[in-house]
Amino acid sequence: MNPKLVPLIDSLPSTVPFVGPEALERKRNGLFRARLGANENGFGPAPSVIAAIQKHAAESWKYADPENFDLKHALASHLHVAPSNIVVGEGVDTLLGLAVRQYVSEGTPVVTSLGAYPTFNFHVAGFGGRLITVPYRDDREDLSALLDAVKRENAPLVYFSNPDNPMGTWWDADDVERFIDALPPTTMLILDEAYGETAPASSKPAIDISRSNVLRMRTFSKAYGLAGMRCGYAIGAQQQITAFDKIRNHFGMNKLTQIAALAALKDQDYLRQVVGKIIAARDRISAIAEANGLKAIPSATNFVTIDCGKDGAYALSVLNRLIERDVFVRKPMAPGLDRCIRVSVGLDAELDIFEQQLPLALQAAS
Amino acid sequence: MNPKLVPLIDSLPSTVPFVGPEALERKRNGLFRARLGANENGFGPAPSVIAAIQKHAAESWKYADPENFDLKHALASHLHVAPSNIVVGEGVDTLLGLAVRQYVSEGTPVVTSLGAYPTFNFHVAGFGGRLITVPYRDDREDLSALLDAVKRENAPLVYFSNPDNPMGTWWDADDVERFIDALPPTTMLILDEAYGETAPASSKPAIDISRSNVLRMRTFSKAYGLAGMRCGYAIGAQQQITAFDKIRNHFGMNKLTQIAALAALKDQDYLRQVVGKIIAARDRISAIAEANGLKAIPSATNFVTIDCGKDGAYALSVLNRLIERDVFVRKPMAPGLDRCIRVSVGLDAELDIFEQQLPLALQAAS
Ligand SMILES: Cc1ncc(COP(=O)(O)O)c(C=O)c1O
Ligand SMILES: Cc1ncc(COP(=O)(O)O)c(C=O)c1O
Repeated sequence: MNPKLVPLIDSLPSTVPFVGPEALERKRNGLFRARLGANENGFGPAPSVIAAIQKHAAESWKYADPENFDLKHALASHLHVAPSNIVVGEGVDTLLGLAVRQYVSEGTPVVTSLGAYPTFNFHVAGFGGRLITVPYRDDREDLSALLDAVKRENAPLVYFSNPDNPMGTWWDADDVERFIDALPPTTMLILDEAYGETAPASSKPAIDISRSNVLRMRTFSKAYGLAGMRCGYAIGAQQQITAFDKIRNHFGMNKLTQIAALAALKDQDYLRQVVGKIIAARDRISAIAEANGLKAIPSATNFVTIDCGKDGAYALSVLNRLIERDVFVRKPMAPGLDRCIRVSVGLDAELDIFEQQLPLALQAAS
Repeated sequence: MNPKLVPLIDSLPSTVPFVGPEALERKRNGLFRARLGANENGFGPAPSVIAAIQKHAAESWKYADPENFDLKHALASHLHVAPSNIVVGEGVDTLLGLAVRQYVSEGTPVVTSLGAYPTFNFHVAGFGGRLITVPYRDDREDLSALLDAVKRENAPLVYFSNPDNPMGTWWDADDVERFIDALPPTTMLILDEAYGETAPASSKPAIDISRSNVLRMRTFSKAYGLAGMRCGYAIGAQQQITAFDKIRNHFGMNKLTQIAALAALKDQDYLRQVVGKIIAARDRISAIAEANGLKAIPSATNFVTIDCGKDGAYALSVLNRLIERDVFVRKPMAPGLDRCIRVSVGLDAELDIFEQQLPLALQAAS
C-alpha cells in the first residue's frame, strides 16, 4: 500500500507543457546551432543587467525580500499605478498558476483559445478546471467567440493573450476594450501581455486598475531578455492583487532576479534598442520565409509564425527536418494552426543558419 | 460585482509565513548591522559558485532546462540513487507546497509539531487541510506523539524536520527509522532535512528509495549558502517523485540557479570548510548566551536557539530590544518554545555586534 494522491492529482496525465531544447539535444546527442524555438530573446539582457547580476552574485546567500518592495515600487512608477496594484512572481507561468488556483476548482469552466499558451491549460487541468476552447479565426484569437463561450458557460475565468502565442497576431486596444466592456463583471480576464513590449502601442489599452475583472500579466522573459531569471508581474485592482498574497510562495523570488529585473527596468534605452533588433529580426525571418515561397504571418512578438502552405503533417515534417539540421524551432499543434512553424528571433548568425537550412528542410520534407 | 474567488481561497487569511528583514528595515527606517534572523548562511556560497554565476550571467536569456537533467544527475550520483528518485524545485518551500497539493484536499488531516516550520502550515491551509499539531517535548519534535496523532487521525501526511527549525534539535537515525517503520504505509512522511548538511551523520538514516511513504527534502539554501537562489530537492520512490511532474512549474527554475547548485555540489571542500565555520559560529553564539546567563539549546543547524529563562513576553522583549539595536534575530512563537530567541550563524563581525548588544538588550528587557 502506498500513500494515496488526492483523486484530482491522481487523475492528471504526466504531460508537460513543452519539451525543452536541452532534452531534444540529449535525444539527438548533439547541440543545436540555432536556438530559435522557445520564444526567448537571443539578444540577451542589457549589459547593465549582466553587470548587476555579477556585482551582486555574492549576495545570493540572502533570501530575497518577500514583498518585492523595490521592484514593485519601480514597476508602479513605471506604469503609473500603485504598488498595491502589482504582484511580482516567478514568471508569468507562476502567476498563471496562482490565478487559476484562485478562480478554478473541480469542474469550473475556463475559456481559452484552441492552441493558445499550453502552460495556462496545464494549470487549469491541475486544478480540475474544465477547459472550453474556441478556435482561432483568421489566425487570431476570436474575441467574439471567446465572449460567447464565457457567457454560454458562465465561466469565471477567460484567458486571452495579446499579442498571441503561437501565432504572433494581435488585436488593437479598441477591440480589447470592447471585449473587456462586454465581459460579465464576474468573469476574470487574464490578459497575458508577455509580448507587450514588442507590440505596437496601439494594441495596449490604457491600464485601468478600477477594473476588478482584469489581470494583466507581463514578464521580463521576452523583450527584457531574462527568461532564465523567472520574473513576471500581474497588474490589477488592489483587491484582486492582494488575493495572490494568500497563496503565493512569499519567499519564492530569486534575490539576483529582483536585482536583474530592477536593473532591466531602469535601462529603457537598451529595451528600445532591443525592440528595434527584434523587429528587424522578425522582418528578416519573414523575408526568409517569403524567399522560400512561404507566408509569414504578421507578428507583434519576438517570433514569426510561418505558414508552410500545406497540412499539419507537412509542417511537422519541415520542423523535423530543421531539427535534424540543428535548428531548434517549434510549431503550433492545434488544427488550423498546425500548418505553421514558429521561429523565434535570434542573432544574425543564427538566422543565417536558418536561412541556409530552411530551403533544404523544405526540399527534404516534400 | 466582482469575480468570485473559490470559497477555499476566499476563506484564507492574509497572513504571511514570515516578515522579511527588509520589511523591518523599512519600518525602522534603518538597516540592520547584523543579519542573524533568517537562518541564512552569512559565510555565503563558494567562490567557485560565485564565479560560475558571474561567468554565466549573460546566459540568463535562456529558459532553464525544465528537466533539471544535469543537476538531477549530479545529485543522483552524489546520493547514490537514480535521477528518477529526485525532483528539483525552487527551494524546499516550493516542494512542500507541491507535496501538500498532492496529498491534501479540503478537510484532510495533516500532522506536524506545534511551532514547526510555518511555511508548511501555510501550504496546508492553502489547500484546505486540517492541521493537527503536537507539542514539542523537551524542545524536540515528539516522534511518538506525532505517530499517535497520525494514527488517531488517519492522516495521509505528516511533517517532521530533522534537525528541526526553530529549536535546532534533532533525533538520531535509529529513532527516525523506528518512526518511519511505525508509520502506516498510507501516510506520507515529509522528512525535511533542510539542515541535513550541518547535522551529525548519525542523525541521517540511509536513503532508502524503496520506501514509498517518505519524501526527504534538502536544500542549497543553508549549508551551501544559496538561500537567495531558490533550489531544493526531494528524494523518494520513483512513483512518488514522478507525481510532482504532474503539477510542478516545469519552467520554474532559474537558469543561473541550476548552474550555481551544480557548482556548489561539486565544491564539497568548500562545503566542509563552511560547515566547520557554522559549527564554530554555533559554539560562539552558545558561549555568548551562556556568558549572559542564558541557556543555549544544542543545535545541529545553522542557528542557535537561546532559552531566555523566563516567559514568552520576556523573550519577545529581548528580541525587540535586539532589533532596536540593529540586530535582526527571530523567535519561536508557540507556547513552550516562546521563551527562546533564535540566532542564525554569521560572520565574526556580526557576532561581535550580537555579543555587544545582547547584554544591553537583556538589561533593557528586564
Ligand atoms: C503567451 C505567453 N505567456 C507567458 C509566457 C511565459 O512567461 P514567463 O517566462 O514570464 O513565465 C510565454 C512564454 O513563452 C508566453 O508565450
Ligand atoms: C525546516 C526548514 N525547511 C525549509 C526551509 C526553506 O528552505 P528553502 O530555502 O529551500 O525553501 C527552511 C528555511 O528556513 C527551514 O527552516
